[in-house]
Amino acid sequence: MSTGYVYHELYGWHDTGTHAGLLPADPRRGLQPFRHFENAEAKRRVHELVVATGLVDRLTRLAPRPATDEEILLVHTPGHLARLVAANDTGGDAGDGGSPFGPGALDIARLATGGVIRAAEAVVDGEVDNSYALVRPPGHHALSDVGMGFCMLANIAIAVSAVRASRGVERIAVVDIDVHHGNGTQAAFEDDPNVLTVSVHQDRVFPPDSGFVTERGTGAGHGYALNLPLPPGTGNGGYLEAMRRVVLPALHRFRPDLIVVAAGFDANPVDPLARMMVTAGGYRQIGRMLLDAAAELCDGRIAFAHEGGYDPVYVPFCAHAVIEVLAGVEQPFEDPFGVNFDNQGQQELQPHQETAIEAAEKLVAEIG
Amino acid sequence: MSTGYVYHELYGWHDTGTHAGLLPADPRRGLQPFRHFENAEAKRRVHELVVATGLVDRLTRLAPRPATDEEILLVHTPGHLARLVAANDTGGDAGDGGSPFGPGALDIARLATGGVIRAAEAVVDGEVDNSYALVRPPGHHALSDVGMGFCMLANIAIAVSAVRASRGVERIAVVDIDVHHGNGTQAAFEDDPNVLTVSVHQDRVFPPDSGFVTERGTGAGHGYALNLPLPPGTGNGGYLEAMRRVVLPALHRFRPDLIVVAAGFDANPVDPLARMMVTAGGYRQIGRMLLDAAAELCDGRIAFAHEGGYDPVYVPFCAHAVIEVLAGVEQPFEDPFGVNFDNQGQQELQPHQETAIEAAEKLVAEIG
Amino acid sequence: MSTGYVYHELYGWHDTGTHAGLLPADPRRGLQPFRHFENAEAKRRVHELVVATGLVDRLTRLAPRPATDEEILLVHTPGHLARLVAANDTGGDAGDGGSPFGPGALDIARLATGGVIRAAEAVVDGEVDNSYALVRPPGHHALSDVGMGFCMLANIAIAVSAVRASRGVERIAVVDIDVHHGNGTQAAFEDDPNVLTVSVHQDRVFPPDSGFVTERGTGAGHGYALNLPLPPGTGNGGYLEAMRRVVLPALHRFRPDLIVVAAGFDANPVDPLARMMVTAGGYRQIGRMLLDAAAELCDGRIAFAHEGGYDPVYVPFCAHAVIEVLAGVEQPFEDPFGVNFDNQGQQELQPHQETAIEAAEKLVAEIG
Amino acid sequence: MSTGYVYHELYGWHDTGTHAGLLPADPRRGLQPFRHFENAEAKRRVHELVVATGLVDRLTRLAPRPATDEEILLVHTPGHLARLVAANDTGGDAGDGGSPFGPGALDIARLATGGVIRAAEAVVDGEVDNSYALVRPPGHHALSDVGMGFCMLANIAIAVSAVRASRGVERIAVVDIDVHHGNGTQAAFEDDPNVLTVSVHQDRVFPPDSGFVTERGTGAGHGYALNLPLPPGTGNGGYLEAMRRVVLPALHRFRPDLIVVAAGFDANPVDPLARMMVTAGGYRQIGRMLLDAAAELCDGRIAFAHEGGYDPVYVPFCAHAVIEVLAGVEQPFEDPFGVNFDNQGQQELQPHQETAIEAAEKLVAEIG
Ligand SMILES: [Zn+2]
Ligand SMILES: [Zn+2]
Ligand SMILES: [Zn+2]
Ligand SMILES: [Zn+2]
Repeated sequence: MSTGYVYHELYGWHDTGTHAGLLPADPRRGLQPFRHFENAEAKRRVHELVVATGLVDRLTRLAPRPATDEEILLVHTPGHLARLVAANDTGGDAGDGGSPFGPGALDIARLATGGVIRAAEAVVDGEVDNSYALVRPPGHHALSDVGMGFCMLANIAIAVSAVRASRGVERIAVVDIDVHHGNGTQAAFEDDPNVLTVSVHQDRVFPPDSGFVTERGTGAGHGYALNLPLPPGTGNGGYLEAMRRVVLPALHRFRPDLIVVAAGFDANPVDPLARMMVTAGGYRQIGRMLLDAAAELCDGRIAFAHEGGYDPVYVPFCAHAVIEVLAGVEQPFEDPFGVNFDNQGQQELQPHQETAIEAAEKLVAEIG
Repeated sequence: MSTGYVYHELYGWHDTGTHAGLLPADPRRGLQPFRHFENAEAKRRVHELVVATGLVDRLTRLAPRPATDEEILLVHTPGHLARLVAANDTGGDAGDGGSPFGPGALDIARLATGGVIRAAEAVVDGEVDNSYALVRPPGHHALSDVGMGFCMLANIAIAVSAVRASRGVERIAVVDIDVHHGNGTQAAFEDDPNVLTVSVHQDRVFPPDSGFVTERGTGAGHGYALNLPLPPGTGNGGYLEAMRRVVLPALHRFRPDLIVVAAGFDANPVDPLARMMVTAGGYRQIGRMLLDAAAELCDGRIAFAHEGGYDPVYVPFCAHAVIEVLAGVEQPFEDPFGVNFDNQGQQELQPHQETAIEAAEKLVAEIG
Repeated sequence: MSTGYVYHELYGWHDTGTHAGLLPADPRRGLQPFRHFENAEAKRRVHELVVATGLVDRLTRLAPRPATDEEILLVHTPGHLARLVAANDTGGDAGDGGSPFGPGALDIARLATGGVIRAAEAVVDGEVDNSYALVRPPGHHALSDVGMGFCMLANIAIAVSAVRASRGVERIAVVDIDVHHGNGTQAAFEDDPNVLTVSVHQDRVFPPDSGFVTERGTGAGHGYALNLPLPPGTGNGGYLEAMRRVVLPALHRFRPDLIVVAAGFDANPVDPLARMMVTAGGYRQIGRMLLDAAAELCDGRIAFAHEGGYDPVYVPFCAHAVIEVLAGVEQPFEDPFGVNFDNQGQQELQPHQETAIEAAEKLVAEIG
Repeated sequence: MSTGYVYHELYGWHDTGTHAGLLPADPRRGLQPFRHFENAEAKRRVHELVVATGLVDRLTRLAPRPATDEEILLVHTPGHLARLVAANDTGGDAGDGGSPFGPGALDIARLATGGVIRAAEAVVDGEVDNSYALVRPPGHHALSDVGMGFCMLANIAIAVSAVRASRGVERIAVVDIDVHHGNGTQAAFEDDPNVLTVSVHQDRVFPPDSGFVTERGTGAGHGYALNLPLPPGTGNGGYLEAMRRVVLPALHRFRPDLIVVAAGFDANPVDPLARMMVTAGGYRQIGRMLLDAAAELCDGRIAFAHEGGYDPVYVPFCAHAVIEVLAGVEQPFEDPFGVNFDNQGQQELQPHQETAIEAAEKLVAEIG
């Protein structure tokens, strides 16, 4: 078992400034300068935990390279790339007013996208069995012509397009477990029946008006976008049921040649940017299910790309658990918060969660 | 309308150290040093917002004084006080292993408790119409013989006992809207029919095993403890319904001489330590309902004591909204996050939330 | 004895962003995002110490108001004001590329300048005996047509001009003990014989090419600018000798009607932005000398305006010592670092420092 | 040319808590909680810069291992080791009240010491040509029976003893360019004529009463300890003269088999913990001189161990410059602060600095 691992210290240098969490600081609006929710800490601490526990010694370090213009333009418009190029010396915003960056950010964003490409290519090429790209900034909200939701470039959509172009991979399934809707990835492939996008997320957090179960892809792609909006407050029970009844069946029907996972950990029980309760133990099981599905369906070819996850303290344990699964670690490192978080009230599946799951479950049969 | 306001810069000096959120940093457990969830930022920023918007000019500053041993011993055992005295030169933990403090912390804790006493006394004495004590450390988890959940002294329980002793106030209702169960306050008065404790909280977050609807007080106090554990994911709709169907009816049946509010803002939509979605707008309405109830029931005598609330960015807007209500501000300062948070999915009352509310509603009739 | 004290929480909201100390973060130049040396901490902590020790109870709080356009234009060009107005919605730089600010910063800068005006007026009006304006951003580097060195508006120069205009004060001496050259104040009055500017600073730190002993004012103002550039490494001994042999004699010859002190504390022994070693004890003596001079020369009329000082830990003790002197505190609060810093090597006057002092001493005789 | 490089993310996990710079936070002493001057930032940012510029690709990563009890006891008393073992579960202080640490710190300290050992061994073994160990906590103040000045274990003294024991290296010269006196290393070898310790430092900063030019070693070691206390305010000129007239001649007389450098960068122009002005350019030249000396004297065998340096912004550029020299980089990465810092006043050699240098220069002739 070999697991590729992408990380670069420059990912932590992406500068989201002194925002008051989500909004630019401004005394006139009562917004005292602070830090952006999307800052370097959570991701840097994932990497440091991976090193501190020795897990890194079980991994194969893969060096990222910058994504090229050609790769970026597989998904984005020339206008969007030009926008980012133009602002690269001064810093600016990726286009939605909520995705700030500093000077040189495009260089870092290219390295993030290139890291996901590298992780996917290494799996397809058999260089490693599976892989984890711990990149920053995230990507799954970026649309073809505009950045969005802290995302500058559509890391995963670009990587999917790149490995299809360069490696001839035909069918790719993207499973997005980030707590927010993977709208950018969905949009990139909405009319493409060869890319299945499945997004399990909290109902209408971000973007505020997408991710409905009724969004199913368009044209030839109809049926190949699948959304499961879960109610706020869903924990391990609901998420695992969603995996069992929606995500895994969808993968089995689609029979991908490669699975790419949008590995957001913002469904954790202390994340500021959502209201879910998935613990490191829950993520471990989700990771295991996805790995098993890959084993059954596509010779184990699965690549994870890090997306959201904003609590600097707990995200590391969630991501670490998933990377342990990828690496086949048999004695997992203990989650010191597990005794608390695993036992919080209503971690188990609730009836109103089951209702939401059933709505998506019905659509699975129409895949393929 | 005059509103008393207690704040002291020393509240920000209470030192919870470099914990990894909740647990002591320890490389052997994978716990990289960081900051405690309960640090100075959220409260200091509440105060700074109150100043920055000019709201402070509508308030009457009340200077806190340290709570005396006599006052503390109204609720706590000599053993607990001795524990805190013993550790005051070195720092230590308030007793449960999760309530760290630094040298001199007892001095600050006394000032916090004394601040709540001051705020309550000023209302009872008619010095102000109502009041807000923005104190730290919090208090509602502290038990008679041990600190707990970041709490060193039971600020509110001590203040309630103190105003009863010094001012002869007979019947006091404590409404605890902190997202965690107000177990300490409940325990302090569990057999006392003259103190009604009502706690609306998220089901089993903290403490992990209390706050059940079945906890109703003991002996003569049976019926005078009321708990409403709401499901994770509850937003403005559920909270306002809980106010209308449980909290306000309970206050009307009890007919207090004074209302004390445990004003935790950790039910906000980005708080790390719970999974609720009450926005500044929601808190404003809750504050308004409580103020109106006080007006009807006890000549407006109501004192708020700050408890939890851990997101440094948004807690200020939540607390500011409540203080504006107390001060009778007619043109509220706009919540810049409102447009996002007020419209997140499932903010409205959900059926499974209503079920939880109904269970508590049934018990209200037995009060008084 | 009454001492006016100006502080506003908004001073801490001035946003200097994520600079790498002095330079904009930029991965291409190796500049990882961090914090600006000139951030809120040092000043906020001065205020918090003043409150924590109870010193604030000896002071008369003076509320600052924003400086008006008219006041600003007493010193600055319309072009500079227009520059700041234009950038007030987006944030920008005050003109030299090293003075960053965020949205709404001009509002804060006006409040800082207005705070110094308020402190000076209160002294002139006899409302208080003396005063201390703890403001931010600083001002003494700002030139008429451009901000500079973290300064947006020339706080002191404007205040001096304003009290001369509004109160008819004739002769004002500005003593600048900030470790950097008070070039902006000097420039504002370089040809004015009624404003004496004395600057004691480290030789060529900032600005890199001004503050020479040969800069003496121009035209009618010749002789009324006095500069004492001290060698790096100067401690209490050198500074006190500089006071005795240069600053105090200059004040005595000039016989001002009001003394304004540019109270920078960046000559402290742990400041990052200079290499001096003046301790809280040293600052206390400097403050005492200036207060005594004011008593002898101008009925005690002296107003202090806070300028630089960048170590968040020690600046508070330095400023606190000076404010204690102003307030006539007899039992000073102990500097906990004094035992270390007061005894570091070469705190006493060194021969090469004396040489520098003598060069300036010779010029004093030509004043007046 | 191959250069070994030791770094481990756990070095950043050493927890010095919420000290007010140097002293434990305590409201009663006016000490607001903050961060310790010796925190992870400066060192972590050195490593990140080494990665960000690509310099890491020119280096040979050497994995550190924990120092064993046997190695530690080569320098320390069993009592000191027992003290650290006893406090390893709770955290504590290394013995002087100014060297705080958290739980598990001994594990990290062992890894730091082991990193220096590894770096030295790799050079002696010819595995690499030279090496740089970027470790934390530092070590050069630790005495045999007590930690001191942020140091838990005497990293360099232990490494020197270890390579002498394990590799039979006979004569080792330790050059300590940290701005504080290398008292611990000196003490470890004070009576040993086979270990030359040379320390160039600021006169009496820390420890307050050691590092005098008159300290020359004891017994057989007389003459083999050499101290050059420079006046505060010394810049590149003074340091380079000190290298030319004292350090290099001493090395040439001693003719070591291995040079170990205590590479502190706290003589930089913005360091809080000293008052010197050595820029990255100055450090580059110092590094070059030492490397050249090693080439001439001991086949290039030189190992650098990171010690102090407390400004998180500029220390990285200083250390990076030295590592570039070791690695033989021909196109150095530009110091973006150089244009400012290199030209500050009195960077060139001053007469009073020369006097101090001459006092040490006279002693060189007496070395073996
Ligand atoms: Zn997300
Ligand atoms: Zn709470
Ligand atoms: Zn200055
Ligand atoms: Zn040092």
